[in-house]
Amino acid sequence: MHFSLPHALEILERTPATFRGLLDGLTDAWLLPNEGPETFSAFDNLGHMIHAERTDWIPRAEVILAQGVDLRFPPFDRFGHLQEQDGKSIGALLDEFAKLRAGSIATLRGWQLGATELALEGEHPVFGRVSLQQLLSAWVVHNLGHIAQTSRVMAKQYREAVGPWRAFLPVLDR
Amino acid sequence: MHFSLPHALEILERTPATFRGLLDGLTDAWLLPNEGPETFSAFDNLGHMIHAERTDWIPRAEVILAQGVDLRFPPFDRFGHLQEQDGKSIGALLDEFAKLRAGSIATLRGWQLGATELALEGEHPVFGRVSLQQLLSAWVVHNLGHIAQTSRVMAKQYREAVGPWRAFLPVLDR
Repeated sequence: MHFSLPHALEILERTPATFRGLLDGLTDAWLLPNEGPETFSAFDNLGHMIHAERTDWIPRAEVILAQGVDLRFPPFDRFGHLQEQDGKSIGALLDEFAKLRAGSIATLRGWQLGATELALEGEHPVFGRVSLQQLLSAWVVHNLGHIAQTSRVMAKQYREAVGPWRAFLPVLDR
Repeated sequence: MHFSLPHALEILERTPATFRGLLDGLTDAWLLPNEGPETFSAFDNLGHMIHAERTDWIPRAEVILAQGVDLRFPPFDRFGHLQEQDGKSIGALLDEFAKLRAGSIATLRGWQLGATELALEGEHPVFGRVSLQQLLSAWVVHNLGHIAQTSRVMAKQYREAVGPWRAFLPVLDR
């Protein structure tokens, strides 16, 4: 499947509602456990989405579109969510993410990107030259990846509780 | 984390809204591709949830609670969803799943299960004796596993589109 802006927007627009469906009103028993040291809980996954929304995707797209002297992306802190989410409720985080995402989508639509803009490049700190189209594709996949990760970390809390079913539930051992 | 009925219900109750957030109104470009022969598309995942809702979890729990002469579970057809979903829209499937799940939860709550009932056993066709508590735990994990799988199959459609980001997006190679 090739990148298309309308297809990408389908996913970007739905992600806040998906996280809301998955997490809104859950107790800490589901929200707070993780998969081990330096891994994300369900709550962390949402905090990370918010942090990326503020500091990663749109800011990097702006660097590409500006085509300035320095094409390098601003650095992204994989643990930056820890400040974002401190002391907040899951409902407050869900509202914040929905609001930020709506703003991102308005910005993205406002750019009215065509093939020329989508082919422009920036410089990723690790793997170098990447196009705007690749950045937007990665944004889509990042959403879906964190929905999958959030579901997985919650599923793993019942790894022992399922008994012999574990052999039939591969999400428990990913 | 040990099994508890209130915790299990938290997940069971949220699954229809999660699938709705993820899939409602998506075009076939996202809904129909799969991960290869005999794998599930996003659409298939939802059809499978519906088929399991009708023929797997509650019917098996009933076998356990009845404690009759034959404790074996009725067989489950992993490709039974193909009849369920034929010719239906994604919106119709989402409505159907929400309705079936609401019924399942009402049935489950109506049983007013205590520790005695949760310890009762049935016979799984592959791995033998399993308790009602393990069955209900597996139901919870099955929900979360198919949310993860649905996200993953959609993410993989952009495996090439992300270019070098693939190395940072593990969901693309699971």
